[in-house]
Amino acid sequence: MTEEPRFVEDLTDQTDNFSRWYTEVILKAELADYAPVRGCMVIRPYGFALWENIQRLLDGRIKATGHKNAYFPLLVPESLLAAEAEHVEGFAPQVAWVTQGGNDKLEERLAIRPTSEAIIGTMYSKWIQSHRDLPLLINQWANVMRWEMTTRLFLRTAEFLWQEGHTVHRTEEEGQEETMKMLEVYRDFVETEMAIPVIKGRKTEREKFAGAEATYSIEALMRDGKGLQAGTSHNLGQHFAKVYDITFQDIDGERRYAWQASWGVSTRLIGALIMVHGDDAGLIMPPNVAPIQTVIVPIWKNDEEQASVSAMVSEVQALLPKDLRVEADMRGEYTPGWKYNEWELRGVPVRMEIGPKDVQKRSVVLVRRDNRKKEFVPIDEIATRLPALLQEFQNDLFQRAVQFREENTCEAATLEELNATISEKRGFVKAFWCGDTKCEEAVQAETGATIRCIPFDAREHGKGKCIKCGAESDIQALFAKAY
Amino acid sequence: MTEEPRFVEDLTDQTDNFSRWYTEVILKAELADYAPVRGCMVIRPYGFALWENIQRLLDGRIKATGHKNAYFPLLVPESLLAAEAEHVEGFAPQVAWVTQGGNDKLEERLAIRPTSEAIIGTMYSKWIQSHRDLPLLINQWANVMRWEMTTRLFLRTAEFLWQEGHTVHRTEEEGQEETMKMLEVYRDFVETEMAIPVIKGRKTEREKFAGAEATYSIEALMRDGKGLQAGTSHNLGQHFAKVYDITFQDIDGERRYAWQASWGVSTRLIGALIMVHGDDAGLIMPPNVAPIQTVIVPIWKNDEEQASVSAMVSEVQALLPKDLRVEADMRGEYTPGWKYNEWELRGVPVRMEIGPKDVQKRSVVLVRRDNRKKEFVPIDEIATRLPALLQEFQNDLFQRAVQFREENTCEAATLEELNATISEKRGFVKAFWCGDTKCEEAVQAETGATIRCIPFDAREHGKGKCIKCGAESDIQALFAKAY
Repeated sequence: MTEEPRFVEDLTDQTDNFSRWYTEVILKAELADYAPVRGCMVIRPYGFALWENIQRLLDGRIKATGHKNAYFPLLVPESLLAAEAEHVEGFAPQVAWVTQGGNDKLEERLAIRPTSEAIIGTMYSKWIQSHRDLPLLINQWANVMRWEMTTRLFLRTAEFLWQEGHTVHRTEEEGQEETMKMLEVYRDFVETEMAIPVIKGRKTEREKFAGAEATYSIEALMRDGKGLQAGTSHNLGQHFAKVYDITFQDIDGERRYAWQASWGVSTRLIGALIMVHGDDAGLIMPPNVAPIQTVIVPIWKNDEEQASVSAMVSEVQALLPKDLRVEADMRGEYTPGWKYNEWELRGVPVRMEIGPKDVQKRSVVLVRRDNRKKEFVPIDEIATRLPALLQEFQNDLFQRAVQFREENTCEAATLEELNATISEKRGFVKAFWCGDTKCEEAVQAETGATIRCIPFDAREHGKGKCIKCGAESDIQALFAKAY
Repeated sequence: MTEEPRFVEDLTDQTDNFSRWYTEVILKAELADYAPVRGCMVIRPYGFALWENIQRLLDGRIKATGHKNAYFPLLVPESLLAAEAEHVEGFAPQVAWVTQGGNDKLEERLAIRPTSEAIIGTMYSKWIQSHRDLPLLINQWANVMRWEMTTRLFLRTAEFLWQEGHTVHRTEEEGQEETMKMLEVYRDFVETEMAIPVIKGRKTEREKFAGAEATYSIEALMRDGKGLQAGTSHNLGQHFAKVYDITFQDIDGERRYAWQASWGVSTRLIGALIMVHGDDAGLIMPPNVAPIQTVIVPIWKNDEEQASVSAMVSEVQALLPKDLRVEADMRGEYTPGWKYNEWELRGVPVRMEIGPKDVQKRSVVLVRRDNRKKEFVPIDEIATRLPALLQEFQNDLFQRAVQFREENTCEAATLEELNATISEKRGFVKAFWCGDTKCEEAVQAETGATIRCIPFDAREHGKGKCIKCGAESDIQALFAKAY
């Protein structure tokens, strides 16, 4: 008999050390592990099943909006990457370079893609001839690499998985429309499936994507009061089209440069999920993306009970809808209590307990992971009650996160107020800002907070004075310490 | 009005130049394109949709046999790769090396994974402690890189996409059982879904995977008479377990080295599909993996006809089962004839024609891509007839390939016979071989043919004399020129 490790006792409390809690819960729940390569991680089967669910649901939305998947090369010749000046300046310090192939030194260095505008733009230049080829709506799921100095599992790793959409349009308006459409796809996906409320807005010039005309993002609030950028959508204007020569013959016969957008989310979303929903007992998975939505834990004391309980477990499994992700933990070497702990740590939304008494009463016990509320459900109602409970759970998790964000969002009229909030309890702070990068930088230097975005409703809050320079402004920006 | 390119007239005949036909059909059907990086390709949306169907159907089988997906890092430190001597010797000449990260030269070179035994073995060593952790059954879908000198789209590219399963077992028997099980999964998948008949067998020592105890493969015959290895499954024995220290406490309390298997198929399968099924008019897609299973081509001469035909197209679309992949080509700038050519080139299995007469008769015309047979189907039968026709098409395509293989498989009793067959018409040639690598190499030097595998039924053919040295042998090997 293996000695039973007491997972939960070992887990650091969130309030003691959120950062340590985060790393511990990832390792103990076996979402990921450190790899023997600097800054890289291994996504373990439980974490990857979560990513597969995220992929499947987001991919469905990407295709439903008319995009098709493709695959472009991992390596980008240095000369191509360097063509867009702002772009290469932004990414060069983070590039891993291939300099040798087999036994030969390469004539030109090849970058492992930090993002794919350069290589994709080069292909688009070849494929696009006429306005009839537009819009061109392509997405790829891929690994990318950014040589980061400080890394953290899922949030900032040298290699990560993501999707990157790259689209080409006939007009500036269509390019902007696409940029907004995909930002909304991200909002809908992250809120509906991952139960993470987000704020849509525009990034400042300082924080925008290197080479973009404008960057828009969805911003979420973690339970430690720090903000996290959960997805971005870029209006690239004609920046890359001019560099990679993406032109088309327009309806009037004129040859014109095309307009582009690009947009992406990554395995970082898993970091957001962990930090928005988790508690001191471990992860809490939103049912829509949970690898296991319900775990069945049987309870028995002797062989006779084991037989009748096991039979009922099979009976219940056969009754449940086939599209539910349910697992029965029939391992004999662990006690029910140990299993409860383990599956709570792993964040399974609903636990189903079946013991000898339940067999007699022909009912099961359902226990919610978030509030531990129990309910007794007759076996002939389980096929309808369990899906309904999972939906309630999904909704409640989202509402809980909305409420947390509301409780941790405030306004600041002065730099002192902003500083006090950020240093005491963090959270989102709305404050007026004149629009000058110098003021933005000064606020960060003094408080550690950055502008997460200019929310789309920023101008609906009237006017105020920039918290740094005092100039009148109608831009209410969203500040936070951020990951 | 765009001038209508006549795709099919431009396509080289298979018999004139199979290799040129192959490249042209890939480029014209927009399956893939050359990338501006040496030896790399871009998989375009039509080709990638094919790969997604392959992935989905194979992934289902991989999961149904108890495997889970995960993701391991792209980069492998040189010291890890070098630990297994045979392995590194086999792969080092093909490795792309990262030597610089950002502005810093790396202390140790990092290989872009040519395969992942090294990095995965290192993690398994950490994760596996007890026999209870076994079997460990993990698969990953990933990009890998092998710095090839001569490249060809899908068949041999510097970067390619694949899946690689890496499993760990308690006993030698279980390791061998897994190796055979996954070879059978590949056979079933490739034959059932891709309609490609394959021969299962064992690779010779010379052709086995670098570091494996034994390699098994499925071998297919292309329409130009060359063989192609379509998938491999390796029994790794304890080779990697000893190098990466993968040990476990066995049931009896003893610490033992684990047994391993690994297995993979890649985007090469797309090359096989093209070369097994395609004809002088272009691709022929097996319905089970076809991105588009049926294309509807409307026919009209005036606005009135356009209205009634379009209405019927919509009516038919609404009647068809939702899981069919059907597209209606409603483009106004191309004639029906041009569209027929294009969709034949792209290999869509069934074309549905709807014209004014069909509207009157309330029926549609179905045309098969393989033999151009037409049938008229009343609209109220289309929802059952079309899926049935697609299934017939799938079966017929497989049977056609089986028949081709039978017609192009023969036996040779002497080296001269083998040479004559290989130089005249190629194909699979069965011939006795003594088992000595020297004879194997000599046959290749003299005829260009290699041993594709020792088929599992090799010993059922009695005994004969090695075609090279004349020694008596009970091994009937399968020879062919190969990709």
